[in-house]
Amino acid sequence: MKSTIYNCNVIEFPKIHNRAGNITPLNGLTDIPFEIKRVYYLYDVPGGETRGGHAHHNLYQLIIAVSGSFDVVLDDGKNKKTITLNRPNYGLYIIPGIWRDLVNFSSGSVLLVLASEKYDEKDYIRDYPQFLHLKND
Amino acid sequence: MKSTIYNCNVIEFPKIHNRAGNITPLNGLTDIPFEIKRVYYLYDVPGGETRGGHAHHNLYQLIIAVSGSFDVVLDDGKNKKTITLNRPNYGLYIIPGIWRDLVNFSSGSVLLVLASEKYDEKDYIRDYPQFLHLKND
Repeated sequence: MKSTIYNCNVIEFPKIHNRAGNITPLNGLTDIPFEIKRVYYLYDVPGGETRGGHAHHNLYQLIIAVSGSFDVVLDDGKNKKTITLNRPNYGLYIIPGIWRDLVNFSSGSVLLVLASEKYDEKDYIRDYPQFLHLKND
Repeated sequence: MKSTIYNCNVIEFPKIHNRAGNITPLNGLTDIPFEIKRVYYLYDVPGGETRGGHAHHNLYQLIIAVSGSFDVVLDDGKNKKTITLNRPNYGLYIIPGIWRDLVNFSSGSVLLVLASEKYDEKDYIRDYPQFLHLKND
């Protein structure tokens, strides 16, 4: 698992502006680098909360703050970087083999994830020592 | 276009509860009746705002209030009904041939749409008299 945090980027998406609100459209494979097999969203997060980390063997994800803000701490076993998401038309693209922690949620924030695969528990790496072992193999 | 508003339903989705927030996962074809080809979301809508209506020839959609609330007015050319969306784990499934208006947005609301097709302007019906003509053919 040779992926690094430097292969994870923030992508700016279009914002279609209108008196009655803004729209950001994301077509699978066109606007983002994968087909959208699954969507999930996280809400009712208490302000200041932290969500425990994990990594994936094969999953590609795009993480978006559609409301409020939070920080994503990316970790490839050697280096870490923290990315603040707080605009609905920016998305963080995360490739397989990257540990991520979600921290510093604002009250009322909503985290939207577009994922390249359906849910598969076997794809999750939830143990940090095991993650480091896989990265250093 | 014989579809009616009675074929459009509110679907309750799972809510995975946790001290640090709730997650609702939507796997294409498993949790919802179509593959997710496109995702878009509407934000920065001024409170009380209304968004002009349209219908689709072929598109299936799921509309979710991931933050705040709004009302969706469905119209099949003969009957209308108004559905209030205000919980992130409920989605309104809209089939082709239904005119919809979006009204009564709360401040800070975010409307998330999962769509069965990529964007195609030819699939939109934006003229209400034309819509009525198609429905009565």
